[in-house]
Amino acid sequence: MSVLDNIRVVLVNTSHPGNIGGAARAMKNMGISRLVLVDPMDFPSPEADARASGATDILANAQVVKTLEEALVGCSVAMGTSARERHIPWPLLEPRESGQKCLEQIQTGAEVALVFGREYAGLTNEELQRCHFHVHIPSDPNFSSLNLAAAVQVLTYEARMAWLSLKDAPAVSVPVPSDDMPVTADEMEQYYAHLERTLIDIGFLIPERPRHLMTRLRRLYGRSEVTKLEMNILRGILTETQKVVRGDLHKRVRFEKD
Amino acid sequence: MSVLDNIRVVLVNTSHPGNIGGAARAMKNMGISRLVLVDPMDFPSPEADARASGATDILANAQVVKTLEEALVGCSVAMGTSARERHIPWPLLEPRESGQKCLEQIQTGAEVALVFGREYAGLTNEELQRCHFHVHIPSDPNFSSLNLAAAVQVLTYEARMAWLSLKDAPAVSVPVPSDDMPVTADEMEQYYAHLERTLIDIGFLIPERPRHLMTRLRRLYGRSEVTKLEMNILRGILTETQKVVRGDLHKRVRFEKD
Repeated sequence: MSVLDNIRVVLVNTSHPGNIGGAARAMKNMGISRLVLVDPMDFPSPEADARASGATDILANAQVVKTLEEALVGCSVAMGTSARERHIPWPLLEPRESGQKCLEQIQTGAEVALVFGREYAGLTNEELQRCHFHVHIPSDPNFSSLNLAAAVQVLTYEARMAWLSLKDAPAVSVPVPSDDMPVTADEMEQYYAHLERTLIDIGFLIPERPRHLMTRLRRLYGRSEVTKLEMNILRGILTETQKVVRGDLHKRVRFEKD
Repeated sequence: MSVLDNIRVVLVNTSHPGNIGGAARAMKNMGISRLVLVDPMDFPSPEADARASGATDILANAQVVKTLEEALVGCSVAMGTSARERHIPWPLLEPRESGQKCLEQIQTGAEVALVFGREYAGLTNEELQRCHFHVHIPSDPNFSSLNLAAAVQVLTYEARMAWLSLKDAPAVSVPVPSDDMPVTADEMEQYYAHLERTLIDIGFLIPERPRHLMTRLRRLYGRSEVTKLEMNILRGILTETQKVVRGDLHKRVRFEKD
């Protein structure tokens, strides 16, 4: 049991069973399981099962009713998706706000409905007036109508994100492996000193004409949040480079003299 | 023209053309139009057109390429969707953060790729390593795999939301000096190739025992959003190091012989 069980998804008069399946899958991905179908055109259907792709339990448990009124029984708040500007102004939420609104409600034990209309015609004005809030997904005005399952995905995603932010709130401390810990400021300084020496050794940095080189490299590595493991690699590269400049050079010189 | 045109959606090796159509529709709803298909199994296809439902222009203009590398040419940042925890931890974003990251990049004129893997197998480790960031949609761990078009919907929705929040804010367009522009994915690949050769030259990287070295360096530099100017410095260091290994060595040898 999760408070997410207090959220129901209501699909009104859906034409394509594939969309019911797609909506079920989207819901289950987001941990939401209660589906109510108001007068679906074609359900149950193999097409719905196929598109549900493993969320068939949600389809099997779906409640099928005749009217939106029945679908909303027991709900404190209903939020209806609306593509268009409506004649009668209504409290209008963005999906993020609707997620927050869901959370506020379900935390108190109240039940919430997310209501989605027909594929081509949406919700009627009468249906929209049964909803406490309207939700508009801020799509491109030139191509504004989302696929039904995609709209269910966006609203259930926002409900889940609101719920997760609550869950995460009392700081959960995950132990980070020590190799993945960021290095300390003094370790970074040691690295910069080593880097500078090496760049001088290879002749890339001319101390008399430093050209902001170290400043720029500090800016680059400074923002990279280098880990302990990565620092070992970076220092290793410098050490090997210096060996080439010094030790290995002599070895090779001896070799060439032989 | 909109800065959203600097976002491309890359679908890798998609099996079902219906998903390509669904992705195109989701993109067009969110005002994003550039679609790149890497080696799709079945495209063009009437099923893709049907599911695109009016977004057929996006399908008609889709670019079909053979490899992910080609798909990323010109991109500064690639974000790959990832369902699983990976062996080597990688900078991991939630969709909201990826939306923000998109916005930061496209505002500077840089190009961004949102990369989506195969329906059943996702992206390979090698493909994920070509991405600077991984994005995980925080789905229910018991049923975590979203439909491809639904995943495209969530990520493009977040990119659009980030962009809208900016539009609503008092528009500040700060021209970024070209030196401070992030480098593209192909420039990063050239750097990694140069780095790898140099590390072999100095004897730090033993090709027979690579020890995840390049993977770790990719992770470090990949998340650093290296600028053009910084790249010039990094490449300069490699070139000088190689000179030490080759040319300068001989000069010094001659000198010591004198």
